[in-house]
Amino acid sequence: MQFNLEKSILVLERTPAVLKQLLHGLPEEWATSNEGPETWSPYDVVGHLIQGEKKDWIPRTMIILEHGEKQPFTPFDRFAQFEESKGKSLIELLEEFEKLREKNIVELKGLNITEKDLQKTGMHPGLRQVTLENLLAAWVVHDLGHIHQISRVMAKQYKREVGPWTEYMGVLK
Amino acid sequence: MQFNLEKSILVLERTPAVLKQLLHGLPEEWATSNEGPETWSPYDVVGHLIQGEKKDWIPRTMIILEHGEKQPFTPFDRFAQFEESKGKSLIELLEEFEKLREKNIVELKGLNITEKDLQKTGMHPGLRQVTLENLLAAWVVHDLGHIHQISRVMAKQYKREVGPWTEYMGVLK
Repeated sequence: MQFNLEKSILVLERTPAVLKQLLHGLPEEWATSNEGPETWSPYDVVGHLIQGEKKDWIPRTMIILEHGEKQPFTPFDRFAQFEESKGKSLIELLEEFEKLREKNIVELKGLNITEKDLQKTGMHPGLRQVTLENLLAAWVVHDLGHIHQISRVMAKQYKREVGPWTEYMGVLK
Repeated sequence: MQFNLEKSILVLERTPAVLKQLLHGLPEEWATSNEGPETWSPYDVVGHLIQGEKKDWIPRTMIILEHGEKQPFTPFDRFAQFEESKGKSLIELLEEFEKLREKNIVELKGLNITEKDLQKTGMHPGLRQVTLENLLAAWVVHDLGHIHQISRVMAKQYKREVGPWTEYMGVLK
């Protein structure tokens, strides 16, 4: 599929509702269990998505549009949520993510990004030269990747319970 | 996590809404693209879930409760959706799945399954002896596994578009 901004926004704007449907109202265990030491629970992932709204996607879009490669992106802290989410309930995080995403989509639409803008480049601290199109496509894939992760983490909580079915369930591997 | 029927129902009953949020209203391309030859698109997966509601989970629950191991499960056709979904739109499939799941959850609750029932056994054509608990846990994991699959299939449509970010995106591997 070719990158298309309108189609990408259609995915981005539904992620908060997908996560709310998937997680809200479940017993806490489903949302706070992880895949073992140093892995993330669905609760941790939602906190990470909030950080992305604040520090990653829109701020980096602005850097590309305003400064190009001259101003490298600020490195993103993949562990900030462990501090930032402290004391917040899952529903508080889900709603914070929803509000931030809504605001960011309004901002993104307001930029009236053209085909030419999509080819503008920025400097990623690890990946080096990236285009705005790469960044916006990565935002979409990042959302889907974390839905992918959350559903796997939840599935693994029943790894033992499925008994012989483990063999047929790719998600448990 | 220990198997618990009420908790499992909480996951099962939200799957249709999760899929609707994730897929409904997206451009057709997102829902009908797959991962290459012999792989399934989100559209195919929803058709497969419908078949599961009709032929797999509740029918097999009834076999275990009524006949135990004496009546082996009928083999499940993993490809039936390619015929059965023909001519149906994605939203028709999503709504058919929603209705069937709702009916099946009512039926499941009505069975008043006890802890003792969960240890009753049935005969799977490939896996051999399985308990009712295994079957019901597998139903939950099967749902989550297909959300996992759909989010991966969608993410891969932007595999080229993310450029250097491929490296950071586990879901694209």
